[in-house]
Amino acid sequence: MTTTTMSMLETHPAEINVDRGKLAVAIDALIACAETCTSCADACLSEKSVADLTKCIRANMDCADVCEATARVLSRHTGYDANISRALLAACVTVCGSCGDECGSHAAMHEHCRVCAEACRNCEQACRDLLAAIG
Amino acid sequence: MTTTTMSMLETHPAEINVDRGKLAVAIDALIACAETCTSCADACLSEKSVADLTKCIRANMDCADVCEATARVLSRHTGYDANISRALLAACVTVCGSCGDECGSHAAMHEHCRVCAEACRNCEQACRDLLAAIG
Amino acid sequence: MTTTTMSMLETHPAEINVDRGKLAVAIDALIACAETCTSCADACLSEKSVADLTKCIRANMDCADVCEATARVLSRHTGYDANISRALLAACVTVCGSCGDECGSHAAMHEHCRVCAEACRNCEQACRDLLAAIG
Amino acid sequence: MTTTTMSMLETHPAEINVDRGKLAVAIDALIACAETCTSCADACLSEKSVADLTKCIRANMDCADVCEATARVLSRHTGYDANISRALLAACVTVCGSCGDECGSHAAMHEHCRVCAEACRNCEQACRDLLAAIG
Repeated sequence: MTTTTMSMLETHPAEINVDRGKLAVAIDALIACAETCTSCADACLSEKSVADLTKCIRANMDCADVCEATARVLSRHTGYDANISRALLAACVTVCGSCGDECGSHAAMHEHCRVCAEACRNCEQACRDLLAAIG
Repeated sequence: MTTTTMSMLETHPAEINVDRGKLAVAIDALIACAETCTSCADACLSEKSVADLTKCIRANMDCADVCEATARVLSRHTGYDANISRALLAACVTVCGSCGDECGSHAAMHEHCRVCAEACRNCEQACRDLLAAIG
Repeated sequence: MTTTTMSMLETHPAEINVDRGKLAVAIDALIACAETCTSCADACLSEKSVADLTKCIRANMDCADVCEATARVLSRHTGYDANISRALLAACVTVCGSCGDECGSHAAMHEHCRVCAEACRNCEQACRDLLAAIG
Repeated sequence: MTTTTMSMLETHPAEINVDRGKLAVAIDALIACAETCTSCADACLSEKSVADLTKCIRANMDCADVCEATARVLSRHTGYDANISRALLAACVTVCGSCGDECGSHAAMHEHCRVCAEACRNCEQACRDLLAAIG
């Protein structure tokens, strides 16, 4: 899959006051993480051991909701309010870290949790990088 | 309209480590603010002076996305991770303050912006109250 | 809780080609149903019998997603494309009916499912009424 | 960008009653289309001719909301209710067709609309293919 995130940033008519490469990487990581978490919640619900996975399912759902909203706000880059972006990216770092830890703890048992933990770690890093770039 | 937020909190099978009244008020304020902002963005798009309202439209859309995600996360109160709730409520205080200021500045001209500014102020306060209750 | 849905419809600058009362009732029912379903999914996850409730949890999550998206689209009433509204309202009738049946089947055991089944039935009816009004 | 959609489908513990390849293609097209539409709405808001683009902005926002909700529901593939999937895919075909037409009509003038029209057409086709596979 190829997203059009970078093409859209390049054809945007207004100035964007942030590194476009890091912004594109963060947006793509956020939407990939959201999709993976929604899918992992469903896979966990299908496991026989679902009763042991309720914390993981909630973490997945929280992570999906926060990442999706943040991807949307970051995609409105022209109207760029650095305070809102910073607050949301901080929330993403927290929720991706938390979901990555939870999924990571079942990675040996459930392959979907291993894939999901990686998507969370990747997204957490991309959000940290963009936060550093915003300053 | 009567939401079932409080009934759902009262019938929840698990313990909830936060004041249920303040939680219900915050969730209801968040979903009302999200709906009002989505509607205000559309009303602004219908004004002849739309070219002067683009900042307001973006603020409306950001506010709707952040409030909706926060309402969802707060509704998963059992899995309560105080750090995630705090980060999201802080983002809501920022985005509702920003959108309330922007809509407030057109309140004399556009009645829909006056109604929306009130919904944002109301939501900002409910988020501050819940933040204080979480500690 | 009082939503501002009707106030926003009344202060909208453009013409709206549908009964405003039925539109407001449908939007409010959709956002109340979405919130109730998100909350019911979490309550089900907290039940000891969670392994017997996975179908209900999935129905809750699907219903929340579809109702939320439909409330947003209906709130952009000026740009009114009757085909899109019809397709979404039909999806809502299906998903609310399905979730209402599933929650209804546990209503005697779980009070949150009883409340949620009611919210689904109420939303299903509001969507049918709006569909009939659109023609 | 590489999504994990196919990896997640391959590691899902339950049976999936639909062609996994077509499902993955549709989910990826839906999330790419949603992101592109959110971005195109913002780019249109930045154009000097914004007053001529309000129909396009609304189509973009509707398309983003419907595609995002549909991607979520399709990702809960185990709980597969063919009626809900069909109703949502039909809504996607309608809204992607409508948004693709609108963006396509400005493609010569605005490069972001050209990119977005392509994402909509691609998503419309992926939804039609999955609809045909579900039967």
